[in-house]
Amino acid sequence: MNNLFSDRLKKLTPYTPGEQLNDKRYIKLNTNENPYPPSDKVLEAIKDKAGETLRLYPDPESKELLSVIAKKYSIDNDMVFVSNGSDETLAFAFNAFFSGKKVAFPRITYSFYPVYCKLYDAKEETPEMNYDYTINKEAVSKCKYPLIIANPNAPTGELLSNEYICSLLEKDKERLILVDEAYIDFANQPSMAEYVKKYKNLLVVRTFSKSYSLAGMRIGYAIGDKALIAALNTVKNCFNSYPLDRLAQISAVTALNNQEYYDMINNKVKATRDRVAKQLDKLGCTVLPSQSNFLFVKFGGYDSSTIYTKFKDEGILIRQWNYIPDYVRISIGTDSDMDSLINTAKEIMK
Amino acid sequence: MNNLFSDRLKKLTPYTPGEQLNDKRYIKLNTNENPYPPSDKVLEAIKDKAGETLRLYPDPESKELLSVIAKKYSIDNDMVFVSNGSDETLAFAFNAFFSGKKVAFPRITYSFYPVYCKLYDAKEETPEMNYDYTINKEAVSKCKYPLIIANPNAPTGELLSNEYICSLLEKDKERLILVDEAYIDFANQPSMAEYVKKYKNLLVVRTFSKSYSLAGMRIGYAIGDKALIAALNTVKNCFNSYPLDRLAQISAVTALNNQEYYDMINNKVKATRDRVAKQLDKLGCTVLPSQSNFLFVKFGGYDSSTIYTKFKDEGILIRQWNYIPDYVRISIGTDSDMDSLINTAKEIMK
Repeated sequence: MNNLFSDRLKKLTPYTPGEQLNDKRYIKLNTNENPYPPSDKVLEAIKDKAGETLRLYPDPESKELLSVIAKKYSIDNDMVFVSNGSDETLAFAFNAFFSGKKVAFPRITYSFYPVYCKLYDAKEETPEMNYDYTINKEAVSKCKYPLIIANPNAPTGELLSNEYICSLLEKDKERLILVDEAYIDFANQPSMAEYVKKYKNLLVVRTFSKSYSLAGMRIGYAIGDKALIAALNTVKNCFNSYPLDRLAQISAVTALNNQEYYDMINNKVKATRDRVAKQLDKLGCTVLPSQSNFLFVKFGGYDSSTIYTKFKDEGILIRQWNYIPDYVRISIGTDSDMDSLINTAKEIMK
Repeated sequence: MNNLFSDRLKKLTPYTPGEQLNDKRYIKLNTNENPYPPSDKVLEAIKDKAGETLRLYPDPESKELLSVIAKKYSIDNDMVFVSNGSDETLAFAFNAFFSGKKVAFPRITYSFYPVYCKLYDAKEETPEMNYDYTINKEAVSKCKYPLIIANPNAPTGELLSNEYICSLLEKDKERLILVDEAYIDFANQPSMAEYVKKYKNLLVVRTFSKSYSLAGMRIGYAIGDKALIAALNTVKNCFNSYPLDRLAQISAVTALNNQEYYDMINNKVKATRDRVAKQLDKLGCTVLPSQSNFLFVKFGGYDSSTIYTKFKDEGILIRQWNYIPDYVRISIGTDSDMDSLINTAKEIMK
């Protein structure tokens, strides 16, 4: 039945997300979800909108949400794009900007980028990393292709300075730089958003899944020059007129209108992260400095799959990749979650 | 700044959805939404799930929803695919099955199909229609390419018999036939779903937007042989791991578990449709026989844009396309909505 399928299909290699086990037994530290719930105001807004109007299509342009995001960054609505999770924004960006071209990103970064390369016929260029998994800035600076930087980087948690990224933007204004800021709210540096008016070659991608505790609602967005946003809208309108349902739209609007709550919970996550990093370090683990809501950790001489299994056996899910033999990624949970993690880590490292 | 964009972008022509005006003044008969609200049970289920767990990613495979759909059709879970609206399923199907190939669909049908052709490098073949906008079965039967049939067809409302579609499936079992059944619950014929076990070259696409009153929640699905479903999953997992948020998943599950309510409201829609079709016919309009939740109507010698404007001036939104000069499409609303429509139609036709 091979005739039924397209040739393109045969080239594809899907992304594998972290496990979403429904088994309540696990402490889930494997997909960088926020350990704290969404704001009560968000939950109330959803309940309030769960009515008769769900029979009607949502606003295809998500205008109210565009306005709230635009206001946050003091930009116009036509510099904002929203999507069904930030992965959808990334997919559309590959189609609009990188399809049929070379595109560069560090060798160890968000592993969906190479998947999108195959989906959109882009050719990946991967500047060398340093041996300690930090980004080799010299290699990145030399690269002349359109560039994707996850900042902070995943799964390492490393943060590049906005000044460094601006220096790359300056070098060639006809070269697009996409900065994927899924984790920026956990960093001690503001978003690159403030530079989108200055650099027409900068696209900043963000999500409500991490710092807004809304992974379950699937909302992402991008900000950039209006020509970049128009290109994303062209692709979106060739794909799905209404990517964001009514409840997703109101969730995101309400979350942004309750920023104080989120600042409070994200500060808690950062404090827990710094505390746990110190404790793991004391136990003899190697912990990369993280500006994110996860830690990238090496447990002595153990390989990463062994560590993954040891934690899973103790009811703790963490993330491991076969192409990273020595480090695992641990999301920051509540203080109580992390105390359990530290207890298991003590057993492993003793 | 032309260097920023891909060559592919320049080839794209977006789809234009029906207007979603927020102005409450209009009677909205332009996007085939159900005039009746979702089941109370669906709204309760959403409110019940609007809690702490929204911080967690949804099940990427929507397993509970797959099970409920599979049970409805007495098939296995691996014969079901779900997506963020049925347009997303269609997009993935173009990528998996039609990319780089020829694909056929009637000249007048859902106008997103040619948009997907450009997005996925498929070449459209459009068998002639009859002059009365009915499908020319002779032309369709001669066609040897993979085929898309919207059944009932949009925007005409015409229904082809399942026996005829089976005859096409029989002719060449290496040729895929995608039957887009967005409106089948308004027809006097069951879904082609019962044939997916028999024909491995049949993909049936359905939506919760129309007969389940959930356009605002964006849920679509496909059923077919497990090889076809696996292909759709490959594309989906190269695009977005979690296309359906938590509340969309529970909405769809709960809707299917309350089929009685939906049978009741859809029977009301059908009765209203048949009544209005007769009334318009009496006024001298030409009304195509419709098995859908809309009517395709010609108002005497008026062109379609004039008719659109006349109704809009009276506070009634209907759908009009410039490439269809004589007919407009009118969604079936409540009886009271349609009484208003008839009053305006009387003015126009007198």
